[in-house]
Amino acid sequence: MPGRIYTGAKERKSWRMEQWALRDILERAFREDMPMGDITTDYTVPEDSVSKACLIAKQDGVIAGLGICMEAFRMLDPDVKLTPLVKEGDYVKKGEKLLFVEGKSRAMLKAERTALNLLQRLSGIASETRKYVEKVAGYKAKVVDTRKTTPGLRILEKYAVRVGGGTNHRFSLSDGVLIKDNHIKAAGGIKQAIEAVRKAIPHTVKIEVETETLEQVKEALDNGADIIMLDNMPPEIMEQAVKMTEGRAVTEASGNVTLDNIQKVAASGVDIISVGAITHSVKAMDISMKFE
Amino acid sequence: MPGRIYTGAKERKSWRMEQWALRDILERAFREDMPMGDITTDYTVPEDSVSKACLIAKQDGVIAGLGICMEAFRMLDPDVKLTPLVKEGDYVKKGEKLLFVEGKSRAMLKAERTALNLLQRLSGIASETRKYVEKVAGYKAKVVDTRKTTPGLRILEKYAVRVGGGTNHRFSLSDGVLIKDNHIKAAGGIKQAIEAVRKAIPHTVKIEVETETLEQVKEALDNGADIIMLDNMPPEIMEQAVKMTEGRAVTEASGNVTLDNIQKVAASGVDIISVGAITHSVKAMDISMKFE
Amino acid sequence: MPGRIYTGAKERKSWRMEQWALRDILERAFREDMPMGDITTDYTVPEDSVSKACLIAKQDGVIAGLGICMEAFRMLDPDVKLTPLVKEGDYVKKGEKLLFVEGKSRAMLKAERTALNLLQRLSGIASETRKYVEKVAGYKAKVVDTRKTTPGLRILEKYAVRVGGGTNHRFSLSDGVLIKDNHIKAAGGIKQAIEAVRKAIPHTVKIEVETETLEQVKEALDNGADIIMLDNMPPEIMEQAVKMTEGRAVTEASGNVTLDNIQKVAASGVDIISVGAITHSVKAMDISMKFE
Amino acid sequence: MPGRIYTGAKERKSWRMEQWALRDILERAFREDMPMGDITTDYTVPEDSVSKACLIAKQDGVIAGLGICMEAFRMLDPDVKLTPLVKEGDYVKKGEKLLFVEGKSRAMLKAERTALNLLQRLSGIASETRKYVEKVAGYKAKVVDTRKTTPGLRILEKYAVRVGGGTNHRFSLSDGVLIKDNHIKAAGGIKQAIEAVRKAIPHTVKIEVETETLEQVKEALDNGADIIMLDNMPPEIMEQAVKMTEGRAVTEASGNVTLDNIQKVAASGVDIISVGAITHSVKAMDISMKFE
Amino acid sequence: MPGRIYTGAKERKSWRMEQWALRDILERAFREDMPMGDITTDYTVPEDSVSKACLIAKQDGVIAGLGICMEAFRMLDPDVKLTPLVKEGDYVKKGEKLLFVEGKSRAMLKAERTALNLLQRLSGIASETRKYVEKVAGYKAKVVDTRKTTPGLRILEKYAVRVGGGTNHRFSLSDGVLIKDNHIKAAGGIKQAIEAVRKAIPHTVKIEVETETLEQVKEALDNGADIIMLDNMPPEIMEQAVKMTEGRAVTEASGNVTLDNIQKVAASGVDIISVGAITHSVKAMDISMKFE
Amino acid sequence: MPGRIYTGAKERKSWRMEQWALRDILERAFREDMPMGDITTDYTVPEDSVSKACLIAKQDGVIAGLGICMEAFRMLDPDVKLTPLVKEGDYVKKGEKLLFVEGKSRAMLKAERTALNLLQRLSGIASETRKYVEKVAGYKAKVVDTRKTTPGLRILEKYAVRVGGGTNHRFSLSDGVLIKDNHIKAAGGIKQAIEAVRKAIPHTVKIEVETETLEQVKEALDNGADIIMLDNMPPEIMEQAVKMTEGRAVTEASGNVTLDNIQKVAASGVDIISVGAITHSVKAMDISMKFE
Repeated sequence: MPGRIYTGAKERKSWRMEQWALRDILERAFREDMPMGDITTDYTVPEDSVSKACLIAKQDGVIAGLGICMEAFRMLDPDVKLTPLVKEGDYVKKGEKLLFVEGKSRAMLKAERTALNLLQRLSGIASETRKYVEKVAGYKAKVVDTRKTTPGLRILEKYAVRVGGGTNHRFSLSDGVLIKDNHIKAAGGIKQAIEAVRKAIPHTVKIEVETETLEQVKEALDNGADIIMLDNMPPEIMEQAVKMTEGRAVTEASGNVTLDNIQKVAASGVDIISVGAITHSVKAMDISMKFE
Repeated sequence: MPGRIYTGAKERKSWRMEQWALRDILERAFREDMPMGDITTDYTVPEDSVSKACLIAKQDGVIAGLGICMEAFRMLDPDVKLTPLVKEGDYVKKGEKLLFVEGKSRAMLKAERTALNLLQRLSGIASETRKYVEKVAGYKAKVVDTRKTTPGLRILEKYAVRVGGGTNHRFSLSDGVLIKDNHIKAAGGIKQAIEAVRKAIPHTVKIEVETETLEQVKEALDNGADIIMLDNMPPEIMEQAVKMTEGRAVTEASGNVTLDNIQKVAASGVDIISVGAITHSVKAMDISMKFE
Repeated sequence: MPGRIYTGAKERKSWRMEQWALRDILERAFREDMPMGDITTDYTVPEDSVSKACLIAKQDGVIAGLGICMEAFRMLDPDVKLTPLVKEGDYVKKGEKLLFVEGKSRAMLKAERTALNLLQRLSGIASETRKYVEKVAGYKAKVVDTRKTTPGLRILEKYAVRVGGGTNHRFSLSDGVLIKDNHIKAAGGIKQAIEAVRKAIPHTVKIEVETETLEQVKEALDNGADIIMLDNMPPEIMEQAVKMTEGRAVTEASGNVTLDNIQKVAASGVDIISVGAITHSVKAMDISMKFE
Repeated sequence: MPGRIYTGAKERKSWRMEQWALRDILERAFREDMPMGDITTDYTVPEDSVSKACLIAKQDGVIAGLGICMEAFRMLDPDVKLTPLVKEGDYVKKGEKLLFVEGKSRAMLKAERTALNLLQRLSGIASETRKYVEKVAGYKAKVVDTRKTTPGLRILEKYAVRVGGGTNHRFSLSDGVLIKDNHIKAAGGIKQAIEAVRKAIPHTVKIEVETETLEQVKEALDNGADIIMLDNMPPEIMEQAVKMTEGRAVTEASGNVTLDNIQKVAASGVDIISVGAITHSVKAMDISMKFE
Repeated sequence: MPGRIYTGAKERKSWRMEQWALRDILERAFREDMPMGDITTDYTVPEDSVSKACLIAKQDGVIAGLGICMEAFRMLDPDVKLTPLVKEGDYVKKGEKLLFVEGKSRAMLKAERTALNLLQRLSGIASETRKYVEKVAGYKAKVVDTRKTTPGLRILEKYAVRVGGGTNHRFSLSDGVLIKDNHIKAAGGIKQAIEAVRKAIPHTVKIEVETETLEQVKEALDNGADIIMLDNMPPEIMEQAVKMTEGRAVTEASGNVTLDNIQKVAASGVDIISVGAITHSVKAMDISMKFE
Repeated sequence: MPGRIYTGAKERKSWRMEQWALRDILERAFREDMPMGDITTDYTVPEDSVSKACLIAKQDGVIAGLGICMEAFRMLDPDVKLTPLVKEGDYVKKGEKLLFVEGKSRAMLKAERTALNLLQRLSGIASETRKYVEKVAGYKAKVVDTRKTTPGLRILEKYAVRVGGGTNHRFSLSDGVLIKDNHIKAAGGIKQAIEAVRKAIPHTVKIEVETETLEQVKEALDNGADIIMLDNMPPEIMEQAVKMTEGRAVTEASGNVTLDNIQKVAASGVDIISVGAITHSVKAMDISMKFE
């Protein structure tokens, strides 16, 4: 497969959804797109017609979501023949063939839009993530996502972030602590909030505190926060905050990070940079299905 | 509410989802975001604490989705007080207050992200749609969406398109006929495809045929197609196609329509312009929740 | 298969539900019929027992629903051997064998009632529909169904209507416009109602207006209604209405159509005759399962 | 309410489904009938419009299902005012008013068809059941239903049978034993089948055996069957069978019972007569909704 | 398999849940245990790694639930090789191998806990039940369960009781009548309660009455109760009650039955002894999974 | 409320499930317990009958689950009056009144068993947990639960552990890393496993490694494990392991911890002791409902 740039996504792509979870999302999608069948295909295409088709990239980008895309075809035609021509995480060029599909014409026509909608969105996320990741190459900072994902598709979107070279922030409100200003006010202070949480949560979870000033950074550090979020701080203050921690806590930069400013943020020495835009404002990667 | 531009969305906003359908989407979202509760809020915020907060626009745009946003708060606190300060379809300016929320602090903190994720996405769609709609003001062409929506959220996203001033293409494969090249090949020609479909479908549904050449336009017209999709045609060919129809069919331009080229497309005289980007590649509108 | 009358149902039977949609209905049915297993079969029939059986028509009629019937057996015994002896839409005579089933005895005994309940009901609908269709042979009118279907089974029942030679009216409130008297009153007149709807709906949907007088027919025509429902009109008024339309709109007769009066209705020249009774008041076709 | 014949349904109507079970059926129905809203009503009827309407009987019959009918209106408009004018089980005359509804016009128009579909079907079942019950007045035989119900609606249909004056056979394969010929063959005889079942089932369940000959009746009796089904026996043989039991078992006549032959069957002295037609082949009772 | 005591569970194990019902429980369990995958296994174990493992009893007991245990492994790896080394209902000794599993390492590690949680609980129930059953060997009394089961798992737990040698009381409130003191009071007496119920329920269901005194036993008998529950009676009173019934009704002892007192209870001559503890207070049988 | 011992459960009880999550569990439970209604109550208790009843402890213990217990009554009677007489986490004595219920008799009788099944199980877990917690009073060790919970009820059971004074281990495979021997083997060593995981997981999650020897403890420490599980180690080895960590990692004792040996385990100085028995082998607390 000459011309493709390999991203070394080996370890990332290894994380996968179980089939029943994919099918739950797909069944919902098909129910939405075919409550009463496909009234065009069912009347124009003979039931026994078979076709061959190929998914083709119409622009450069990182592929993510081949798994659920293939499951979509499989769900409408269990005997469909699927031959992936690239691997999850591959950076493909415009015109490159991605997946070869051979099966019942009707099933292929019905599944096409749902399969593409998912593959295009997830590849869009992976491609965007990779841009951020490449910007900070050379810095120690990791690019992570947020909870600003599409309701119902978080598991897929967080997966696509990993495929793009990012890592994940907490999956949900249940599996990570993030003490924000309103929690601090309600608890009566950073110290009280950290203590209250520490007593109650599983010992397997770290405690993160959102800070806006160096005073708050200090208070969080003094009370044993595991992670300190530096929220919307100017780079120079961030740098001071990072120095202040002396490795006693993980530092996370957050707030309005863009492709333009991420290098400055990374230069402050933070460990983690969280970017909402890689999931909430993504252009679908242009991919089309060509029948032979 | 001085300073806001009113879009005359009166008739559009009147279309609404039933509460049980909203709750189905929201329950799924909450289950995803809180499989085991919110381990930060539950330990730092007293159960009887109450708060006031306001949703505020951080950029200009068209608001869509206040209904499901409010339902999110209501679902976690049935007694929450919700006061919308703008109306669906309003064009708001950066800094404008959108919704006043007063209720149990815990519920508000838990619902915040889900409520915003939906409101921001739908407002992003409405805002983007409006840009296209404004571009073709003065032309007869209507801007319509496609089936390139987020799986599971189509009903919401098609609604947001209407709020933004667009109209909808078919909702699903079940409620509109769109005969594409593969259907034509399978059926043995445009004529055969139209005839096969017409015999079978509900008499309430129109028949649309995708064409790539003027010959196909003619063939579709001659066989009584109700709508003719002009797929990826150059504007001058489109113009000829429109003339050729002489009002006997609705004409729809489709394929790679952008804000840059939509006026040229509209100038060809088509009735309908379908734009995938208003749903598949949307920037979330920046909206935040400020606690008092 | 001598003795059977073939109905030429080729194009009709080609419309099919996806397997996951059938299984959704069947799982619900089995859950209802076996919340805690089958306490007769599980204790009298050895687990490894196998049987052969045949579904047999106990009266003449049109067969519809073999697909879901077979899926019911397959769901309880994935290895069951199913050999259909007739085709969907075939008109069978009393005593004719319909389906040969060979598999695990327990699964066959448990699935029997559910499989028959569905096959009998759908064949009843197809048989009744066919009677109406045959009555109007020679007229141009098509027989269509209504929304008077069994809640939860509409997709199956509308399918059975097609198998019986009818066609479908709109599938739901979402995919067809039918402006009735209350809509007209609320909108302020036929003209206002049509205009309000036309602006808002997908361009793929036709607009139907319910009329009770020739004045209303004229008003609907003048305002561009695509379909005009002639509600409970005497045949002679219907005839005038049909003439008045001069092909500018599709005409649909509706209201208390029976096997006795349908020919008179058809003689008025209408395009479409909708009949509620073919779905809401149907005798199940008598079919039984005979074990060898 | 003069003119109505009261059926003494007091004890029968007292059996009710819990609200969450009704809503499960209704949500499914609405999802089917409004996957994307009601595109007629939403654009013609103002959101704040309110209406009054009345459900009216268009033929004589027994009313069943007012509960789920009212819940349908309540589900789309929690504030709707519902005033039932008759009681479950009442025998009403053509033209009689059944239910007064006052609420949001949109909700009423959207719920109308679903509410009527259920009420008409259940009242049809109750009315048909009552005809059978009246035929055997004076005999000791009770009219019971079968498992030949509409998949997904059994709980409602068995309820309607009770409202019509019938009683129920077993609800499902889990809560009653009915040993049929195939079970007998598999077990090696009536004796073996009864013994195998008796050892295994809850002590709260009776054992019924299907018999076709007097020899089988004797064998079932000798082995302690609690109920003996006399399947498709001629009345005179049935009479002998009843005598043979001498009250040691309940006797149930089954097979092709019609309004024409049920009295002869009852005259044989059986305790129970099961009739499939009261659920599988029912004419919907004609009921309409009239807006004021 | 020397050393194992065979319990003659042949007829008991024959009762089985359908696959779709097992999968419903398992999908729920996996969704709970892996909302976002297994973040340990997915990153440490290669996707193509395969393993062999064995389930081993860590204590003596009766095995129940191999079926759902195997389905758990199958659900995450459809190609897994499963070789049961014992049969449902077998009494196994500490150290005995139960099930050999060979398949994808990841799937096996992910399914392990869910598979064991179910197998251990059900085997615990079967083992405990068997202790009670062995205590009353020689008496005619059967040991039965109650409705004191784990919400959502009743079908499995009642199954495990049968595997352990017990039989089941009614499955639910729908399939057995048990008239308790509050029903008696509400109905106005035992006589009234029995009569009201008898008129209304399916003829396939027996009527049980809860009694606390010999007077009540007599009243229940006189009114034709099929089963008489002797609630919390001292053994000597129970004995009198049994004598009083003279076989006219089934007698069931109930209330605080333990392994210590069950023999005394059985000695009273009752037919049935119901024990809540065999489902509501059970020690999980110790079983572990050993990878080779 | 004299006589009750207060457990200071203030912070623990503050963690609560959202209403829709409770209702999901309860609807499942009711569907299981009343697929076709309550055939005793519906025929003996008048629809308008109201009752008062009290839940009473029949043994000493810690109360957990009043919330879901009350929701069960509310679900069948939205107007029921519920007055809790104790608080979550209270240690109550035999005979103490727990909850006063006043509402529709039918609803109360139908909800009784489901409400009690849940309250008894959760209180059983809280009571057992508390015994372990009291044993280690004076030591620094916290008692935590495991993933050995009842499938479908984990959220409730983990809650009950907290109410009993314990804390939680990870909620699922998605929110905590526990590297066991099979992961270590598959990854090629502790070092490799930790590195692979650290690169991939959210930065909010700690890494725990299971060890069986002091060599493994050392290796885990040297590679930066956050938590070290000491699996089935003798107390004296555990003590050495604790010393070896010098506070660089959290230590967790695991494996066959009982009320008899937990003090010895705690004396080793470990931070955390995990106990499977508090969820997998629990006696339901004896609680009954007394009608007035």
